[in-house]
Amino acid sequence: MIWNLFGRGKGPKPSQKDFGPYSNYRLAVRLELTQKPGVFAAVVNLLAEEGASIGAADIVSATKSKVVRDITFDAKNEEHGQKILEQLDRVEGVKVISASDRIFMMHLGGKIQVSSKFQIKTRNTLSMAYTPGVGRVCQAIAGDPALAYRFTSKSNSVAVITDGSAVLGLGNLGPQAALPVMEGKVMLFQQFAGIDAWPICLDTRDPEEIIRIVSAIAPSFGGINLEDISAPRCFEIERQLQNKLDIPVMHDDQHGTAVVVLAALHNALKVVGRRLEDITVVVNGLGAAGTACCQLLLAAGLQNLRGCDKQGYVLKGEGGALFNQRDVLPSLIHYDKPMGTLRDALQGADVFIGLSAGNIIQPGDLDLMAPDRIVFALANPEPEISPEAAHDHCRVYASGRSDYPNQSNNLLAFPGIFRGALDVQASTINEPMQLAAAGALADVIPPSTLSEEYIIPSVFNKQVVPAVAKAVALAAQNTGVARKTLQHLITE
Amino acid sequence: MIWNLFGRGKGPKPSQKDFGPYSNYRLAVRLELTQKPGVFAAVVNLLAEEGASIGAADIVSATKSKVVRDITFDAKNEEHGQKILEQLDRVEGVKVISASDRIFMMHLGGKIQVSSKFQIKTRNTLSMAYTPGVGRVCQAIAGDPALAYRFTSKSNSVAVITDGSAVLGLGNLGPQAALPVMEGKVMLFQQFAGIDAWPICLDTRDPEEIIRIVSAIAPSFGGINLEDISAPRCFEIERQLQNKLDIPVMHDDQHGTAVVVLAALHNALKVVGRRLEDITVVVNGLGAAGTACCQLLLAAGLQNLRGCDKQGYVLKGEGGALFNQRDVLPSLIHYDKPMGTLRDALQGADVFIGLSAGNIIQPGDLDLMAPDRIVFALANPEPEISPEAAHDHCRVYASGRSDYPNQSNNLLAFPGIFRGALDVQASTINEPMQLAAAGALADVIPPSTLSEEYIIPSVFNKQVVPAVAKAVALAAQNTGVARKTLQHLITE
Repeated sequence: MIWNLFGRGKGPKPSQKDFGPYSNYRLAVRLELTQKPGVFAAVVNLLAEEGASIGAADIVSATKSKVVRDITFDAKNEEHGQKILEQLDRVEGVKVISASDRIFMMHLGGKIQVSSKFQIKTRNTLSMAYTPGVGRVCQAIAGDPALAYRFTSKSNSVAVITDGSAVLGLGNLGPQAALPVMEGKVMLFQQFAGIDAWPICLDTRDPEEIIRIVSAIAPSFGGINLEDISAPRCFEIERQLQNKLDIPVMHDDQHGTAVVVLAALHNALKVVGRRLEDITVVVNGLGAAGTACCQLLLAAGLQNLRGCDKQGYVLKGEGGALFNQRDVLPSLIHYDKPMGTLRDALQGADVFIGLSAGNIIQPGDLDLMAPDRIVFALANPEPEISPEAAHDHCRVYASGRSDYPNQSNNLLAFPGIFRGALDVQASTINEPMQLAAAGALADVIPPSTLSEEYIIPSVFNKQVVPAVAKAVALAAQNTGVARKTLQHLITE
Repeated sequence: MIWNLFGRGKGPKPSQKDFGPYSNYRLAVRLELTQKPGVFAAVVNLLAEEGASIGAADIVSATKSKVVRDITFDAKNEEHGQKILEQLDRVEGVKVISASDRIFMMHLGGKIQVSSKFQIKTRNTLSMAYTPGVGRVCQAIAGDPALAYRFTSKSNSVAVITDGSAVLGLGNLGPQAALPVMEGKVMLFQQFAGIDAWPICLDTRDPEEIIRIVSAIAPSFGGINLEDISAPRCFEIERQLQNKLDIPVMHDDQHGTAVVVLAALHNALKVVGRRLEDITVVVNGLGAAGTACCQLLLAAGLQNLRGCDKQGYVLKGEGGALFNQRDVLPSLIHYDKPMGTLRDALQGADVFIGLSAGNIIQPGDLDLMAPDRIVFALANPEPEISPEAAHDHCRVYASGRSDYPNQSNNLLAFPGIFRGALDVQASTINEPMQLAAAGALADVIPPSTLSEEYIIPSVFNKQVVPAVAKAVALAAQNTGVARKTLQHLITE
């Protein structure tokens, strides 16, 4: 029999203690066991034999003859979970009543909701929050559109927009299947930066159509976060929207990643005692994130950049030759005439930044690089080279994994960047704001505590968002894109 | 000096007790008064002379020589408020420190916000609610789109969409100025029906463009509430969206109004002892709401309908002649060849339904109608004829005003209609669902308590939304547009 783990939602609900430690396939099963010595032991042994480590094992109810227990365990994958449930059901004295999958249980009914800032309990409040009183506010805004920032949710809202074409590392799943990720992003905006975001998943992949739609829905939002839109369409969509709209537009897969990479590199270079101006960086993977990293590294002062993609070593800039051309960087990548292989590019380089695919680098490849090398293997979910394999072949290692030191995570950047932009009602998120964000993020770690294994703060570090937001707001003011001036920033 | 009542937000904050009774122009002013007999009296006298009734008068702080007071009072309009403030500032011993306008204070920062259903406080929760765990949910939905209803916010979300072309009775204020109304609507969806709505204000008035945009953003929503879109564009926009989308699309100005009108008429007819099939109804104002009312009344069984607009008596249907043509009703209105005036249409009619403009009907006009006449004067903010003027000239009177009996308010319909549609994952809101909503709304008032002054329940009546939702869900099931079956409805 097939247990419908996520079709019904009738299994045991996960309790707060089930929220850790992490497993991608944690199941909760409700079993009815005969009250007889050896029955529960048979269950425990079966799970042990299957390598399914047991979490909680609570008694739900018990009579003289039967006991009902909720047991959580970690399977290796969905098939494995199904197999274990079938085996459990065949154990003598055991009946599987229901089963549920922790991750799906968490998602039941969605993860986000809307609430009102005050309650409408009387006709009088109704008459002010809605018609007729609200009409006065509408008329005031019609007379002076800037008042929308004062009297509506625009001042603190961000639209999280995707077309579902590049969902996580899973590819083109379409708009509806992208929604759980966008809701997750909304949660992060809310919890990390107090921003009211809402997901908008678009049922079109046409760049012109996406640009028209986002332009049209922009009036009621204070910012636009583009998410999981595939390259190269994402470049043109973002560029045109930035030109058309008077609110910040940022494709997080590009610039959020670039800001975190630059921050991590700032600190890694401090650890090894080098300067950005003097080193050679190899960026592997020239998609949305890789291209944005190249641009931001050049803007930060990098002089020697080597770019690689599946075709090989396809982008080269030395002595700042690319610097003034970074706005047209994608057009300078010559996929058709590679200068060599990735290994050729790695020769003598100081830094490897991977934004490509899992397990494509061997330890020997790193040995081609210069001493004190820095390796950012940021492909998800599998890095370009595992921390274990890279350990003896580089000085500083970072990845996107949460189970190793130096986790590079966009969550370190986007909440603070948008918080800062909204705080000053910025009209855009420009390069100086991104550079400021990277600098502030790096500076969250005091120089005295920097080390090979601590170049990036934790996403749960409470200093991160305020520090990034402040730097971004100040940079917005200094570059003339802030509509509102925060007095306390001027005096610093 | 001009007091910037809504530009700064530095005046006294409104307290809960300031939320009633209703005044469109309630100001709160902070005054510094010299501690001397007669100073406060001068303030009170000035307000009394100006006809500005005083609400709270709290002492904020006091020294031997000065006392600071917050005083709230109701002005007649903005100019009057400014004038009073200037006069107060000139009273000897009085200094106006700051002033604020209650309605604008309520709107500071907007009225709605987003929240998460659980907190992300650990890496483990982050790994489940966001990457990598969320990827499993995305893949499950990509494999079976129906799972979006189970595991995302789609199951309970409604987009409140406007182009700002017909904001309340204020006309084309544009998308940004419409936002306070849409936020109010979102509050009502949330507080009355537990629905998570979000406002989307579109910066385009082109019907084709609006249809494309709404179609594209539909995947992540469970329903679409069109709002304040001007006629005749609203008809085609709604019709095409209903055809294209597999979620409910309803223009509330049309159908929400029609449902409430039909419910009120049901009960009014009970009061006067007549049947819908036997009466003649005049609908005045054939815009969005008027046309929808005509359609729903015909669907409910009305045989004699007379429609009027500015041009006069332009629509006539007798003996059910229009009944089968109601889908093309707008095309049957002959603006170019009126059959007479509104007064001609009123001759011998039993019911007048006004959805037009304030104060266009005289008591004598009503006297042209049949005995036991019913008058719904629903224009906002001023009804077609005031309750005082109509009092001796009709048997039942309803208006959109909250300060008189029988307030007809869309808030009686749309929360329950969408609640019911979402509960069964309906693919549309069809006419049987609207008829069911009207019937359920009417039946909230027990026959024994019906009277000329009580044909419509209060918007704060807790029975309204559940009753309407249940009827709508059942009608959806019975007409085959429900994706989900509520077992308890089948057995009834």
